Amino acid sequence: MGEKKKFIRDSVYGDISLSKFEEQIMDMPQFQRLRRIKQLGLISLIYPGANHTRFEHSIGTMNLGSKLATELELSNDEIELIRVSALLHDIGHGPFSHVSEGVLSVPHEELTKYVITKTSMRDLLEEKFNVNDIVDIVNGKGYLGPIVSGELDVDRMDYLLRDSHNTGVAYGVIDYERIISNLKLEDGLILNIKGVQAAEGALVSRYFMYPSVYQHHTTRIVNSMFRRSLRKIIDDDIIHEKDIYKYDDNDIVSIFRNCDNKYANDIMNRLDNRKLLKRVKTIRLDNFKIPEKMYKIKADELRKAEKEISEDYNIDKDYVIINIAAYPRFDEMKTQVDLDGKLYPLTEISNIISALSKARFKLNYFRR
Amino acid sequence: MGEKKKFIRDSVYGDISLSKFEEQIMDMPQFQRLRRIKQLGLISLIYPGANHTRFEHSIGTMNLGSKLATELELSNDEIELIRVSALLHDIGHGPFSHVSEGVLSVPHEELTKYVITKTSMRDLLEEKFNVNDIVDIVNGKGYLGPIVSGELDVDRMDYLLRDSHNTGVAYGVIDYERIISNLKLEDGLILNIKGVQAAEGALVSRYFMYPSVYQHHTTRIVNSMFRRSLRKIIDDDIIHEKDIYKYDDNDIVSIFRNCDNKYANDIMNRLDNRKLLKRVKTIRLDNFKIPEKMYKIKADELRKAEKEISEDYNIDKDYVIINIAAYPRFDEMKTQVDLDGKLYPLTEISNIISALSKARFKLNYFRR
Amino acid sequence: MGEKKKFIRDSVYGDISLSKFEEQIMDMPQFQRLRRIKQLGLISLIYPGANHTRFEHSIGTMNLGSKLATELELSNDEIELIRVSALLHDIGHGPFSHVSEGVLSVPHEELTKYVITKTSMRDLLEEKFNVNDIVDIVNGKGYLGPIVSGELDVDRMDYLLRDSHNTGVAYGVIDYERIISNLKLEDGLILNIKGVQAAEGALVSRYFMYPSVYQHHTTRIVNSMFRRSLRKIIDDDIIHEKDIYKYDDNDIVSIFRNCDNKYANDIMNRLDNRKLLKRVKTIRLDNFKIPEKMYKIKADELRKAEKEISEDYNIDKDYVIINIAAYPRFDEMKTQVDLDGKLYPLTEISNIISALSKARFKLNYFRR
Amino acid sequence: MGEKKKFIRDSVYGDISLSKFEEQIMDMPQFQRLRRIKQLGLISLIYPGANHTRFEHSIGTMNLGSKLATELELSNDEIELIRVSALLHDIGHGPFSHVSEGVLSVPHEELTKYVITKTSMRDLLEEKFNVNDIVDIVNGKGYLGPIVSGELDVDRMDYLLRDSHNTGVAYGVIDYERIISNLKLEDGLILNIKGVQAAEGALVSRYFMYPSVYQHHTTRIVNSMFRRSLRKIIDDDIIHEKDIYKYDDNDIVSIFRNCDNKYANDIMNRLDNRKLLKRVKTIRLDNFKIPEKMYKIKADELRKAEKEISEDYNIDKDYVIINIAAYPRFDEMKTQVDLDGKLYPLTEISNIISALSKARFKLNYFRR
Repeated sequence: MGEKKKFIRDSVYGDISLSKFEEQIMDMPQFQRLRRIKQLGLISLIYPGANHTRFEHSIGTMNLGSKLATELELSNDEIELIRVSALLHDIGHGPFSHVSEGVLSVPHEELTKYVITKTSMRDLLEEKFNVNDIVDIVNGKGYLGPIVSGELDVDRMDYLLRDSHNTGVAYGVIDYERIISNLKLEDGLILNIKGVQAAEGALVSRYFMYPSVYQHHTTRIVNSMFRRSLRKIIDDDIIHEKDIYKYDDNDIVSIFRNCDNKYANDIMNRLDNRKLLKRVKTIRLDNFKIPEKMYKIKADELRKAEKEISEDYNIDKDYVIINIAAYPRFDEMKTQVDLDGKLYPLTEISNIISALSKARFKLNYFRR
Repeated sequence: MGEKKKFIRDSVYGDISLSKFEEQIMDMPQFQRLRRIKQLGLISLIYPGANHTRFEHSIGTMNLGSKLATELELSNDEIELIRVSALLHDIGHGPFSHVSEGVLSVPHEELTKYVITKTSMRDLLEEKFNVNDIVDIVNGKGYLGPIVSGELDVDRMDYLLRDSHNTGVAYGVIDYERIISNLKLEDGLILNIKGVQAAEGALVSRYFMYPSVYQHHTTRIVNSMFRRSLRKIIDDDIIHEKDIYKYDDNDIVSIFRNCDNKYANDIMNRLDNRKLLKRVKTIRLDNFKIPEKMYKIKADELRKAEKEISEDYNIDKDYVIINIAAYPRFDEMKTQVDLDGKLYPLTEISNIISALSKARFKLNYFRR
Repeated sequence: MGEKKKFIRDSVYGDISLSKFEEQIMDMPQFQRLRRIKQLGLISLIYPGANHTRFEHSIGTMNLGSKLATELELSNDEIELIRVSALLHDIGHGPFSHVSEGVLSVPHEELTKYVITKTSMRDLLEEKFNVNDIVDIVNGKGYLGPIVSGELDVDRMDYLLRDSHNTGVAYGVIDYERIISNLKLEDGLILNIKGVQAAEGALVSRYFMYPSVYQHHTTRIVNSMFRRSLRKIIDDDIIHEKDIYKYDDNDIVSIFRNCDNKYANDIMNRLDNRKLLKRVKTIRLDNFKIPEKMYKIKADELRKAEKEISEDYNIDKDYVIINIAAYPRFDEMKTQVDLDGKLYPLTEISNIISALSKARFKLNYFRR
Repeated sequence: MGEKKKFIRDSVYGDISLSKFEEQIMDMPQFQRLRRIKQLGLISLIYPGANHTRFEHSIGTMNLGSKLATELELSNDEIELIRVSALLHDIGHGPFSHVSEGVLSVPHEELTKYVITKTSMRDLLEEKFNVNDIVDIVNGKGYLGPIVSGELDVDRMDYLLRDSHNTGVAYGVIDYERIISNLKLEDGLILNIKGVQAAEGALVSRYFMYPSVYQHHTTRIVNSMFRRSLRKIIDDDIIHEKDIYKYDDNDIVSIFRNCDNKYANDIMNRLDNRKLLKRVKTIRLDNFKIPEKMYKIKADELRKAEKEISEDYNIDKDYVIINIAAYPRFDEMKTQVDLDGKLYPLTEISNIISALSKARFKLNYFRR
């Protein structure tokens, strides 16, 4: 065993071993902040167990990235690069994860790049790595990119498992070992035919997690409430958008509670006490001739419509929310499968995935 | 607690309680025989952990039947009737379960009826029940029938869970509690809209279990080998078809090993030592214009084709097997769903199930 | 099913059903606050998954209380009283659960009584209950008390299971169903001999959880750091001890971060960034002639010793901490067991528990 | 991935990869026979799920042996030697595992040596190994021996996990990963202090499994019934003791059912139909002044006592059985633990283990 490794205990995988250098990364304030950012934002208002954090998810992603890189027989240097990139892939996430992201003009990937290349984290990383290699992998670029961010990546595998474990929704249980042992790295990650069923299983999991967790109608209500408040706080210059990666969940809650913006105060009070806005009307996507068009509606058109509704019913316009479910992306469909030496996209090999590809739009609803 | 109940320890659910009367049923030789009949026949040759028995499955089915009946707020008498019927629903299964069934002219349901109504089991049952009520439920008849044998019955839920637990194939893990708590009994079992996703999950599970377990290509090879031997043993009058429900797995193995039929001796030796017939050619169902037609091919046509092939290649015709995968029935699709007070078949409510309904035929292969 | 029940999804047990009235209790701000109080306080600094809350634990305790009450064949009214009492048993917990409690002059049981009897919660409860009955049960009084708070109560069973699930430490997995089905209610809860091994298992679990989780040496460091800060904040009149039940974790973190007390600012910064005080010296309890005496040392004696050490080494006395592990109480030992109609304490029946009773003091360390 | 490895699906660990050579070993009839030998003999009469086989256990032991050898940073040749030895460690087990062993004059280790060195298995093994190296490891000899057969070996870890999975008795769930990652190989396997709690957990598991599974009073009854029959069959020259390693469970059942020995016929009929002998009298070990002496009573003294009892009560002497529980060995106690560079036996480090060491004799009963 030589120098005894350090272990961290994970609720999903058990002991995960860490190198000295990884420990140093984790000890940086930038990484410690992830302890205080919930993986699923406000979803604990729907699933009370959903209190897990980006910190756990980052370590879990490192663990799976390490397993996959080892299975792919990469060099020790490559494995270490994958591990550190996976560890850092969410370092730029704002408070409440994707919830805050909806408001920002820059995606969390940009902020992640910023933290890696423009803060004290850079100094540490440069002792061992070229930070641009890490940024590339985090963004799915280069030959190693698909491992952490691609069609069938370890980020996604970890969050499905972890979200299941913490919400109690069993749909996210996937056979990640079978997937990992059937991938090879050529021009992207190629799936062996023996892994197809496990990949189908993972995609079905995500398909199920959408309406029951990630896009549950109450999830969409609390997210909308939160985002509108955050927008106002930023507009009032109470916080600055470019500093968002410095805040944790606790900061935002405190600001919402105590700042001078009455709307934010009220919304936080409603979230704290679960006095949520109510769903008034649902319009099923398939009521429209061309459902895909719904995803192209611009934000200010929605705001305008909300204003009209608020006038018709004589309510404060900030309390009318029209929300369109997120576009159901299933990049897994594009995974290349090796069947007798030729490559096919997963969606051509798999009946169930081809079927889901068509069915997914019918899931969604247009609500206010 | 009054008189302390007896518990039996199940590997899937933990402790299951039994009434005195249920214990007496289980102590009958007819029921004890189920201890010696493997639930998945010869599938332990593919999944080494698949050694579980009809005995366990029968108790598990009773357990779920009891939970569902309680949830439906049935009377104590009805609950007890469901429990006993579930316990006995497979009492007529021949050795190696469905494997032997393929050879017999009577289905196991008939034999089950025979054991319940024409053996010493009847005398015991009549102390408390009308045996015809039990036979009806086992066969899915009457208002209580769908609980044990219907579109979304407890038999199916138990075997999915149990087969997963013992094969290590995770696809069979279903959210049975969610399904059970969302069923009501009207004209058949009606599913509440809140249970739709759990029902979808159960159907997807079964869809996945088919090619990976129940109709795995090696499963089909060993089953074919076994059935052909059993046919010969019956034709040679070594055993009598009508007595099949008296035998256990051990009996048949001994007969195959020691009887005077050379073919059976050889096949048993091959199964014992895993020297299996090899797959030579696969024809995908979707190569045919009308795939459904394949399911209508008669047994003697297959035998004739096998004979021709054996002559062309100069092999013993008994070692040429053409096998068509079982027709993929998914009766769950017909489950009635209550949406705002109106009933719809599940396949209309659920995109994924409607998609699977069409995709399922593409799964299958025509092999020899 | 009549009026469809509401379900809440728990990460440990799956769906838990709620009555309309229970939902109303949960909608009160007093109960919603529990969502924002971590069950294990600061232990997420040691086990990153330990982010679960008193909210989840309260619902889980209700669930087990309900199962036990049903098994005991109590009346519907008694079952409902048990459910609501279990739901409310931790309603007075301060921020970070037991961590804050160490500082307060009143135990959380007192604050729980206050919330139940002196706040708006009382008005709601009185629609259905006599609030004194609830207070009694929460405090383990009366014939129903031992179910929620006794030697072998549902509170303890839930937290062992839940802490295991979230820390990833497997030792907390107990066979709660076996315990529950072997209890009867006479003069206290009496355990049937058939449940002894499951009770032994639960006690061993707790025995293992102490050094690895609840009294892990780092747990004791972070708790000590937090408590000293909280003490100062209270002494500075920044918060008032009697209002502690109104705060959530978020409030205290914000106060620590932003208040005028430099020590609290620094400690919070250290906790946020995991710059913890270091363990310098450990004295094993069994080095003392009479180890039990250690538990009697008074707080001001410890403070005095800390001051002396700080002077010897010329460090700020607030950064010297002497901590004695909590006294390892194992009330389970007193559980009465029914063996052939006579009652014996568990510790007399069980060799392993009698052995643990003596061994437990050797576990602990005296550290500074 | 180079040449795609073969995987076998295990119900406990999921996919286990196999080399080509390991597959060849598994394809030998000597190894295939293990498919038909139940790991827990007749215990399925007590726990209906206990149908798992030596085949599964052998593969699982190989899997853990491989993990431990890898963690110990052994060479590839050593790892392969450990894998194959673990795979073969039970190859000489007679039908129904330890049940038959009680009757034989040679232990299964001897028969294992015979199969490895004197049958066609030798020819295969010699292509890659010196068979004596394998025999040594199987017997715990040499520096690699303790991995497969020692105080804290992978054989034991696998059977605890597997027996739990299949009986549903949760006590066998151990944290094998924590144990494995804290062992080092010096003069024997040395446990790091960080693994002590996991080792305690494993020992407590085994301590609990004894009375509830392995030495459950009904287990002891069915084993005694079976052994007496087997003894008679051997005495009648129906089977020869030296050939026992050729038989599988099925053979023995058939012989018991169909041979000319009336006693064996009757006992098999009783086992088939669960008409077991009844426990009449229990004498607790601690009623004796020197309990350890009980383990020294010779078999013919017991037989003589049985004969006397049978005459007093006028029963057939073959239906009187006096059984003394097996001596509770806990070799784990001797595990060497490294604490600050010095070695101590586990029993000195661990209070709980030292306590169990004394408590274990009180568990046992003297029964007839």
